[in-house]
Amino acid sequence: MNSILDLRVRGDRLGNALLDLAKIGGTPKGGVCRLALTDLDQQGRQWVIERARRLGLDISTDQIGNTFMRRLGKNPKLAPIMTGSHIDTQPTGGKYDGNYGVLAGLEVIETLNDHGIETEAPIEVVFWTNEEGSRFTPVMMGSGVFAGVIGLEQAYAATDIDGKNVKDELLRIGFLGEEKPGDHPCGAYFETHIEQGPVLENKDKVIGVVPAVMGLRWFDCTVHGFEAHAGPTPMDIRVDALQIALKIMQKVVGIAHEFAPHGRGTVGMVQVFPNSRNVIPGQVQFSIDIRHPDSSTLDQMTATLNKYIQEVSKEKQVAIDLKEVSYFPPCNFDDQCIEVIRKSASELGYSQMDVVSGAGHDAIYMKRLAPTGMIFIPCKDGVSHNEIEDAKAEHIEAGANVLLHSMLAFAKPVKN
Amino acid sequence: MNSILDLRVRGDRLGNALLDLAKIGGTPKGGVCRLALTDLDQQGRQWVIERARRLGLDISTDQIGNTFMRRLGKNPKLAPIMTGSHIDTQPTGGKYDGNYGVLAGLEVIETLNDHGIETEAPIEVVFWTNEEGSRFTPVMMGSGVFAGVIGLEQAYAATDIDGKNVKDELLRIGFLGEEKPGDHPCGAYFETHIEQGPVLENKDKVIGVVPAVMGLRWFDCTVHGFEAHAGPTPMDIRVDALQIALKIMQKVVGIAHEFAPHGRGTVGMVQVFPNSRNVIPGQVQFSIDIRHPDSSTLDQMTATLNKYIQEVSKEKQVAIDLKEVSYFPPCNFDDQCIEVIRKSASELGYSQMDVVSGAGHDAIYMKRLAPTGMIFIPCKDGVSHNEIEDAKAEHIEAGANVLLHSMLAFAKPVKN
Repeated sequence: MNSILDLRVRGDRLGNALLDLAKIGGTPKGGVCRLALTDLDQQGRQWVIERARRLGLDISTDQIGNTFMRRLGKNPKLAPIMTGSHIDTQPTGGKYDGNYGVLAGLEVIETLNDHGIETEAPIEVVFWTNEEGSRFTPVMMGSGVFAGVIGLEQAYAATDIDGKNVKDELLRIGFLGEEKPGDHPCGAYFETHIEQGPVLENKDKVIGVVPAVMGLRWFDCTVHGFEAHAGPTPMDIRVDALQIALKIMQKVVGIAHEFAPHGRGTVGMVQVFPNSRNVIPGQVQFSIDIRHPDSSTLDQMTATLNKYIQEVSKEKQVAIDLKEVSYFPPCNFDDQCIEVIRKSASELGYSQMDVVSGAGHDAIYMKRLAPTGMIFIPCKDGVSHNEIEDAKAEHIEAGANVLLHSMLAFAKPVKN
Repeated sequence: MNSILDLRVRGDRLGNALLDLAKIGGTPKGGVCRLALTDLDQQGRQWVIERARRLGLDISTDQIGNTFMRRLGKNPKLAPIMTGSHIDTQPTGGKYDGNYGVLAGLEVIETLNDHGIETEAPIEVVFWTNEEGSRFTPVMMGSGVFAGVIGLEQAYAATDIDGKNVKDELLRIGFLGEEKPGDHPCGAYFETHIEQGPVLENKDKVIGVVPAVMGLRWFDCTVHGFEAHAGPTPMDIRVDALQIALKIMQKVVGIAHEFAPHGRGTVGMVQVFPNSRNVIPGQVQFSIDIRHPDSSTLDQMTATLNKYIQEVSKEKQVAIDLKEVSYFPPCNFDDQCIEVIRKSASELGYSQMDVVSGAGHDAIYMKRLAPTGMIFIPCKDGVSHNEIEDAKAEHIEAGANVLLHSMLAFAKPVKN
């Protein structure tokens, strides 16, 4: 190696690590089911920690189970440069979502070890507790508690469908640490992740530089019509809750198109009452998910939706309830981190483009505490939260190389 | 009584009978839950038979549990003039649907008894097994077997959700008779029923003369889109199964309006997959119910729907399955029966109008065997298949009076 610029991770090693970790909770269809704080999550955590110990890292766990794996720097007074993600998965999740961010971090450290490169600042890899929120809500729990947005006691009290709570489950699997969440310095935070969308693949780019994460608003909408028999009830006197709901469902998508290219609008969940073949629906409840990376545009989308619903309610003379159930404001990442990622990708010769993240990540909360940036790699057909989730070996390697050089730009290799 | 034309039923007696029968399986909300071939159905049947015995009627039950209650005529060679309906109910049914048709028949006979009026032809009241089809499919089972449209063995084999079959349940409640279904002459058949729609009430008419019952076609439609994450997936590359399905759901209603005033189009049942708030629906399945009293128009409606679905499938490049699950052709009732009902209502001084029935009734099958007619009375707000189903005492009485005189027109009072 002539220069630090020639330093590269070992993609084969990282790829194998991903396949090995995926065996814990592996599903017959090739995915992973490793829900937060289950026995399988415990095994996954132990597997990662065992790997970290072999790399000589110091391990610490905080009171919400977030686990930090530290490689010492030359100057112990400097805040560590961190990277990480999560290793819990969706019930029918894949091998890469979250796991890639954690194992890419360990690969960065192993690469530094291989070449005996010391850094000024310590380097840390973290896995956050319960990012997916599949077993316990809210999502991104560990990083949310770390950032002080979610209260520790609130998180502890969250229960799964069997009534088991987070605190008991942390204790049971041996990950109820002593460190106070957030009581942990951080110089900068990077997170590598599969895109979970099709943009990079469609544009044939290797690296996605993430300038921002979309804000999102979630609503539950209920249209109250009048249930009646589908045969004897003439068309012109019906108050068919579904036909009214359809208009709003179409408007949700219409608004997203109005605010192209970054607007998103989705109706993913629909419940019809009484849901009987020969009964005109008396009530329809459905979810609305709207997203945009710009806060005021997101508000404008919401206002447009609200106005439309009021018009429909008035025109059709029916009650329509709209209840907000979740709100994540848009998040812009740190300019310096973004610049470092761009430069690293460019120097490494990878094609790149900016990709606004449509999905939430632990990095959203870390951004409140430290300069933060995210690196995306393509995933097959843009598919994620799915057992068929897949990523190419060359992209897995490329993302980790960009991470390596971005972290080095902050942690500073010690010049011998 | 100066003339047979002055003969009237006793509305109070009929009203009380309806309230008494409704106690068997009565629900806290004032409705009735008396599913076919349950213990409650058995009690209801026994209550009706007990009443018929007090009126001196001969009781017979056929192999599918249809039960006939006969008042002898002067001329035993004449086929009986029949009336009836069913006493099984929906799970959250009302007091009048079906029960009215049976008890109005018994009230007609009690009125003839009260006044010592003999008829040339016998008069019979029948309750058919499992009209509702809530516990066992198909609907209108007893009359369907009687008319030879549904096979006896097929009906016997139908099971409820607990796996209990019709034959065993008939045996258990003591209604597996010996008479071969259909081996029973019928001179004419009348059925009184609540309208189950709002037309009579809206037009302020007492009697609905039913010229026909709408034909219906039931379909299951499945739209195959592509499941993806609601955040990262740009709007313009989505294949959102719900948004495509919406267009077809709207067209179903649109077609009904195109073929006004008798066309009907309803989507009552919708299932979205995976039905998750932040996932673009990958598949949507929904029911389609279209109805029209004219057979060729119903075919035209179906063709229009088919054509539209093909266009959407082509335009959106997605697979859309349309599977027919049920078909009842339109049914026109007997001209002479219709005329007799009209004349009776007119002579009795009741306001009347023609009302095409949107719902199916046992009369549809009886029409295959004998001249058949139906008499509707208004129900409150047009509501049926609901615990709040209600009908006015004056209408209950009026419908039974029209039935009385319509049946007498066929059974012929013996002139003394």
